[in-house]
Amino acid sequence: MAAKIIPVIMSGGSGTRLWPLSTDARPKQFHALGASRSLIEETAARLQGVHAGLEFLPPVIIAGEGHRDLVAETLAASGILPAAVVLEPMGRNTAATAALAALIAAEIDPEALVLLTPADHIVADRDAFLAAIRAGAPVARDHIVTFGIAPDRPETGYGYIRRGEALAEGVYAVVAFEEKPGLETAQRYLREGGFSWNSGVFFFNPAVMLDEFAAAGAADIRDGAGAALARARRQASAKGLEIHLDRTLFAAVRAEPIDIAVMQRTKRAAVVPCDIGWADVGSWSELWRLSDQDGHGNVTTGSVTLVDGANNLVRAEGVHVSALGVEDLIIVATRDAVLILPRSRAQEVKSLIPKKPD
Amino acid sequence: MAAKIIPVIMSGGSGTRLWPLSTDARPKQFHALGASRSLIEETAARLQGVHAGLEFLPPVIIAGEGHRDLVAETLAASGILPAAVVLEPMGRNTAATAALAALIAAEIDPEALVLLTPADHIVADRDAFLAAIRAGAPVARDHIVTFGIAPDRPETGYGYIRRGEALAEGVYAVVAFEEKPGLETAQRYLREGGFSWNSGVFFFNPAVMLDEFAAAGAADIRDGAGAALARARRQASAKGLEIHLDRTLFAAVRAEPIDIAVMQRTKRAAVVPCDIGWADVGSWSELWRLSDQDGHGNVTTGSVTLVDGANNLVRAEGVHVSALGVEDLIIVATRDAVLILPRSRAQEVKSLIPKKPD
Repeated sequence: MAAKIIPVIMSGGSGTRLWPLSTDARPKQFHALGASRSLIEETAARLQGVHAGLEFLPPVIIAGEGHRDLVAETLAASGILPAAVVLEPMGRNTAATAALAALIAAEIDPEALVLLTPADHIVADRDAFLAAIRAGAPVARDHIVTFGIAPDRPETGYGYIRRGEALAEGVYAVVAFEEKPGLETAQRYLREGGFSWNSGVFFFNPAVMLDEFAAAGAADIRDGAGAALARARRQASAKGLEIHLDRTLFAAVRAEPIDIAVMQRTKRAAVVPCDIGWADVGSWSELWRLSDQDGHGNVTTGSVTLVDGANNLVRAEGVHVSALGVEDLIIVATRDAVLILPRSRAQEVKSLIPKKPD
Repeated sequence: MAAKIIPVIMSGGSGTRLWPLSTDARPKQFHALGASRSLIEETAARLQGVHAGLEFLPPVIIAGEGHRDLVAETLAASGILPAAVVLEPMGRNTAATAALAALIAAEIDPEALVLLTPADHIVADRDAFLAAIRAGAPVARDHIVTFGIAPDRPETGYGYIRRGEALAEGVYAVVAFEEKPGLETAQRYLREGGFSWNSGVFFFNPAVMLDEFAAAGAADIRDGAGAALARARRQASAKGLEIHLDRTLFAAVRAEPIDIAVMQRTKRAAVVPCDIGWADVGSWSELWRLSDQDGHGNVTTGSVTLVDGANNLVRAEGVHVSALGVEDLIIVATRDAVLILPRSRAQEVKSLIPKKPD
């Protein structure tokens, strides 16, 4: 029998590292990066249908209340019919979101597994991802399964997962969740082997996740999120698709990443090492690296005239960009703002965002 | 008695070298460059009032018909009351415009001299300019007086005027009008001395200019422009400020620069060598050179965040521009288009203008 899976898509985060395209008003997941559809549409599209051993149920979207209209437009445009859209009145980090995912999935179908995923990542190899999910499904009955990406560089921007004994074919117990390391530590991880990047995707039985909140000493987060959900349900005039979490109760929930609140403490973590073409597109330089470059190393998107340029990312959204004689630059232009900086300094975007955009 | 002078301001040219700020729809003269007011306002403002020996009458504006509204808005905003606004249905180069200037000035006051000037140049030292006009006024009764700028570099983008004998204090006969030279010729001009740049400003008795069209073999241009003007006058329901030249008749006028049609052939050319802070702002790199640079050599205009940059011109019009770690660049952004290129290649802008701007 195929494992039933409820995809829960977390549309959080502001993605300021991709400013000026990504903004608070329209963050990264609502833009097309490396594909013709937006990242959130791509995420939903890769987690639907029936595949050998897997049956995806309609997704649950958990998004910021300020993005209600964007989510509605995106869903309407892409023909995705969600089981629910949960709107957070403010961000309370991923532990609260994971608790909501487990609670809502248990209401929809307590037998189904939850695949909790960020809305703003790229997975280039869907088949490999489906195979990894298939491998993880039996273990996800009583574990929280993560997907570990083989590191190809000593990246200091990701958490690392150290794997232990095999639990099943292709699935391992987790020995430790390591926070973002320094460069020397990251280099050591690569040398030693047995480490994966934490892709931020979690695959679990909702009852197990809810138990592990308590086991990890984070029952308050689970119960607080649950209270905000329950009051929203009671106050709703009709049981619609949209769930507006109670503002006062949700504001009181402790804000912590699921990695720290649960994963670093649970004894039931597992990892499926996999090679799925994963990327979190955390910077313009990463998008340049991931994209198909032309013969001169340029990546251009939109209405762009580029003469005598090499190794640039040039992106025009709603405006025309003309550039000549430039190298190794990131150039991103919208109708509101323009960004220009060297690819090597793409991480410094945050310092360039005006306090009051005009 | 003060010499009466009718300023005639030529608002022609598309100024594509300052794209994307300057466009066909709103060319260079309608933008503020190096001052808080637009170049056309600055031009009109410096040629008004009564000064020792000089009395400026209300100006005549000659502009493209497509810029009618822009001219009207600019005049209204700046409080300039023109004697007439002549609208050319298409460009027919500066000889036709000079003929129109002479014909209309002669109608307004045949005793007044005409000061015919481009709308899109900078004159930083108004007092020196007024002094040069004062010096030229007596000679302008029976000559076409030009204003010669002392060259400080072997510029190949301007015409040169070679001066001969003195006609009056500070005023010389013109031996030759030289077209834009090659670099070696320009270097020789500088070595030899006695050469000035042609600033494109002409100061004359309208009757003399009209005669010299005939003497130079360009009576057809004068008469063609005159016919287009006369028919416009006959067809106008009221004698308003605006003169819409007859399209068919004006289209038939030979298009030639005044330099070639008249100045290279007339025996009545004179020059006042002067140092008036003149610049034609023919490129973004020239604007950078002319502008007050900060301690790092940057010139920024508009809403700009510039970090770790040196020797850049960054201009934001209606958008925000953030740049980091860039040097020696021109960056100009409007809500429609963005330009990025090295200062040293600012002359190559034309190759970057999209055929159909979007």
